[in-house]
Amino acid sequence: MYRTHTCGELRLSDVNKDVTLSGWVQRTRKMGGMTFVDLRDRYGITQLVFNEGDDAALCEQANKLGREYVVQAKGRVCERSSKNSHIPTGDIEIAVTGLTVLNTSLTPPFTIEDNTDGGDDIRMKFRYLDLRRAAVRKNLELRHRMTMEVRRYLDSQGFLEIETPMLVGSTPEGARDFVVPSRMNPGQFYALPQSPQTLKQLLMVSGMDRYFQIVKCFRDEDLRADRQPEFTQIDCEMSFVEQEDIIQMFEGMAKHLFKELRGVELAEPFQRMPWSEAMKYYGSDKPDLRFGMKFVELMNVLKGYGFSVFDNAAYIGGICAEGAAHYTRKQIDQLTDFVKKPQIGAKGLVYARVEADGNVKSSVDKFYPQEALQRMKEAFGAHPGDLILILSGDDAMKTRKQLCELRLEMGNQLGLRDKNKFACLWVVDFPMFEWSEEEGRLMAMHHPFTHPKSEDIPMLDTHPEDVRADAYDMVVNGVEVGGGSIRIHDPELQAKMFEILGFTPERAQEQFGFLMNAFKYGAPPHGGLAYGLDRWVSLFAGLDSIRDCIAFPKNNSGRDVMLDAPAPLEQAQLDELNLVVALKDEKKG
Amino acid sequence: MYRTHTCGELRLSDVNKDVTLSGWVQRTRKMGGMTFVDLRDRYGITQLVFNEGDDAALCEQANKLGREYVVQAKGRVCERSSKNSHIPTGDIEIAVTGLTVLNTSLTPPFTIEDNTDGGDDIRMKFRYLDLRRAAVRKNLELRHRMTMEVRRYLDSQGFLEIETPMLVGSTPEGARDFVVPSRMNPGQFYALPQSPQTLKQLLMVSGMDRYFQIVKCFRDEDLRADRQPEFTQIDCEMSFVEQEDIIQMFEGMAKHLFKELRGVELAEPFQRMPWSEAMKYYGSDKPDLRFGMKFVELMNVLKGYGFSVFDNAAYIGGICAEGAAHYTRKQIDQLTDFVKKPQIGAKGLVYARVEADGNVKSSVDKFYPQEALQRMKEAFGAHPGDLILILSGDDAMKTRKQLCELRLEMGNQLGLRDKNKFACLWVVDFPMFEWSEEEGRLMAMHHPFTHPKSEDIPMLDTHPEDVRADAYDMVVNGVEVGGGSIRIHDPELQAKMFEILGFTPERAQEQFGFLMNAFKYGAPPHGGLAYGLDRWVSLFAGLDSIRDCIAFPKNNSGRDVMLDAPAPLEQAQLDELNLVVALKDEKKG
Repeated sequence: MYRTHTCGELRLSDVNKDVTLSGWVQRTRKMGGMTFVDLRDRYGITQLVFNEGDDAALCEQANKLGREYVVQAKGRVCERSSKNSHIPTGDIEIAVTGLTVLNTSLTPPFTIEDNTDGGDDIRMKFRYLDLRRAAVRKNLELRHRMTMEVRRYLDSQGFLEIETPMLVGSTPEGARDFVVPSRMNPGQFYALPQSPQTLKQLLMVSGMDRYFQIVKCFRDEDLRADRQPEFTQIDCEMSFVEQEDIIQMFEGMAKHLFKELRGVELAEPFQRMPWSEAMKYYGSDKPDLRFGMKFVELMNVLKGYGFSVFDNAAYIGGICAEGAAHYTRKQIDQLTDFVKKPQIGAKGLVYARVEADGNVKSSVDKFYPQEALQRMKEAFGAHPGDLILILSGDDAMKTRKQLCELRLEMGNQLGLRDKNKFACLWVVDFPMFEWSEEEGRLMAMHHPFTHPKSEDIPMLDTHPEDVRADAYDMVVNGVEVGGGSIRIHDPELQAKMFEILGFTPERAQEQFGFLMNAFKYGAPPHGGLAYGLDRWVSLFAGLDSIRDCIAFPKNNSGRDVMLDAPAPLEQAQLDELNLVVALKDEKKG
Repeated sequence: MYRTHTCGELRLSDVNKDVTLSGWVQRTRKMGGMTFVDLRDRYGITQLVFNEGDDAALCEQANKLGREYVVQAKGRVCERSSKNSHIPTGDIEIAVTGLTVLNTSLTPPFTIEDNTDGGDDIRMKFRYLDLRRAAVRKNLELRHRMTMEVRRYLDSQGFLEIETPMLVGSTPEGARDFVVPSRMNPGQFYALPQSPQTLKQLLMVSGMDRYFQIVKCFRDEDLRADRQPEFTQIDCEMSFVEQEDIIQMFEGMAKHLFKELRGVELAEPFQRMPWSEAMKYYGSDKPDLRFGMKFVELMNVLKGYGFSVFDNAAYIGGICAEGAAHYTRKQIDQLTDFVKKPQIGAKGLVYARVEADGNVKSSVDKFYPQEALQRMKEAFGAHPGDLILILSGDDAMKTRKQLCELRLEMGNQLGLRDKNKFACLWVVDFPMFEWSEEEGRLMAMHHPFTHPKSEDIPMLDTHPEDVRADAYDMVVNGVEVGGGSIRIHDPELQAKMFEILGFTPERAQEQFGFLMNAFKYGAPPHGGLAYGLDRWVSLFAGLDSIRDCIAFPKNNSGRDVMLDAPAPLEQAQLDELNLVVALKDEKKG
């Protein structure tokens, strides 16, 4: 061992001990005849001190140390004369008697500090240096503790962690698969799993009863800001359960994690909200409930006054931002620009201030008498000093989603989205299907194995679009951290579901035959859910992106810029795989 | 919840409780007016009883239950009149008052019993039914407990589990990679990792200090009986350590696992054996030390008597099988056939029996006077009743490997390889390099990042073939369960190593540039090891193959016969990936 202690553990009680530390040189300072070196490892920073008067040669050696050199120092623990209360080792320092340079270092391309001067690109290219920064390292430590606690909880509840294969079959339904050519089976391909969904259902058929797995999943999608081609799921499934059992089990797990990792005791049951309500009042299936600003619909209040925008609207609704009447014209113009951005797509924004005397002043005063505006004020329960913001549009759902964006923006501007406050809820009663304009057919909102609500099953034949599912999402602070459903275990119901989704019996058999066959041999009632580990860690870590809770993330083009992957293969590899690369341009040529 | 209790938990103390159980029908028996149903779930079997006299309709319903039907039964716990001491629930039964069939089942293609009538192929096709058998399920339960205990131990030692990416770059050195075409980077491919070797070394450069990961790895090799294209490693790495630190840490882990999972206390330190000694005395780098039969070299004893086979041999050696002098001529002929099998390749077998009077009778008596045979007997320390078996050959290493096979076979035949006895050792001081006939150059015996023993570094320039490595394998019962090495952290030494391995500086930079560059920024001394989880679980489970400790294994052609993967892709998928499949035959045509 190159050390007797880490750089984070020595205290006043260790004074006079002879110790050996190893670590990286964070910085050196020369003050008169003294040289101070901050030595860093994963566990902390300890100050080394060299006295020219005691050993000039050794002090000279210390003066030559560069940033990020790896050194081993032997010496005695001493009490510091000027203590540093900012670090746990700040009461002591090491009077060094021997110094060994274990490795030198080039000057790093950015500073190894919490607030680094390195931009995203250079940090990713030199990720091994970026990970030396405590700010990044702490996220990985949290991730480790999180997976440990997840396993501890689920193990205590009788779950077995069972590994499912990574080389599976491709299912063209849903997102795109990453595929893996098989050399031993020429012309054939494995796929990497988008999730172990069907495999965990087979484990239920096999009687495993309670399964979980913390597992890598893969989706070949065009990457949005906060997606990765490979991501990690906490994947769970239980047999002989109903929706309520699963909600209880995993609410318990969430509370366990909040307590162990954030010291937050969530005593109350999580709120539950039907999907239809979430859409109606928050314009989102993952409402951020850290703050109010519930939508108020104003169709009955504001129609019929000759303001054609509203008179012709299919939806008029608004939010009340408490105490925001002080917003200037400029600020409101900026909000108007915000909702008119192409990504949001509103046509405009109507606002109204509730003045100190209770009067309402609005941007559409010329159409509305004060009585109408007062009725609107009452609809919001607004008070003097509040700011009312109103959107309208010809598609209720689209307008609600625009209003959702405005609500979240106002939450941000008014400081209502505190990262240290947690609002958890279950969104339930999702619709079974959603209409796909692109495909011109109903699509499964969750996946084709989701069980419809028993009372809605008769509507499958008549009004499938109204059928609700035994599906549920856990939402924290406006982030969907997990979701799942009760699954169909009846082969006939499953066959009907495939039919509604437009599968021919042959295609259903081809793609999911292994599962439908398995269901013929005694499938138990079962259900489960999956959490996105990356999202959950970043939520707990207070990060805006999942990237910094992943050791070696990929960029928006799916590249690992550190490894420089992907890359072209050697011809021999392609030949062995019976593959020819035919780039589009070459084909044209 | 479809149950109040599992099928494994009710006891005499529960008598008179009203309970609900759910599970699978293991079997039904009709005896007079009574029907008995064994109801099975993951936790056990509970007997349900139906009395025609009490409820004829209900009893009739029970009589119609088929094997593997999924049912829910409500009833009262009663004491059994005839108890079954073979199962923990054998003192009670459930007098059923209500029965619901949750799902029916076709007749399974094989019996769901520990000793099933299903062959390997059908079991794998219907793996979800195979997993219902307690004999298979127990292996997965053991695997779960093993990974829990590994994590518990490593977490307690300050290790962080850090996920490394699955989509990495291809390195043509070593075994074949599985590759993944990138749609977003046309013509380029990711590779699936053969191990996270370089990534964990980067984590050491990043100061993570103690890393582990239980992680899927991939090798596209022609599969031998006990290999899988995807397998699971317990992958570990530590900084600021020497070989001794790693051995201590992971011997501690092994002892923890033996104690927690097998109830075996291994008090003594594991034996350590240099690689050269393992080869000399056991003809293997993973000797099975559950029994003796150490090789004895007989060059000095048996040469020069006119027996040309021995006189011309480069190696003569043998083993002494205690108490096996009773072996018949037929048995010895079978052993001769065994060593002459092409996979082993010996030319013949010489044997000698030590008779009751101490005389030695051998198959080569006509060449050797009794004094010579007595000297041989002494060399073995053989006693009356022992059987001596001798091989010779013109290549010492090859002959030792043949003798190793013979030794293991004799161990099997004499019952010396008890699956409940564990002999653990470290094999150390591996050679750095081995000569590859195929490549006509030195190859790294472990991998190119292995540190040579410091005292042997001067020989790198003069006799690289004699250089030993700071490498170590943990061997249990003749199985290499894990292995690793101290790594090179000096960029210059690493560059020299690549040179000896025949890399041009350009090729080394191209393939491992990211690692060599990282080493320029202060790499700490580090080392680690990796365990094969599949092998270790199968060892603990007493299995001969790793297949039955994997939920969904692949067959020898790398196929998942249950999922029917791999399979051809749809043309649209190939087009998106800019790939054309060009099968060899088509190319020729």
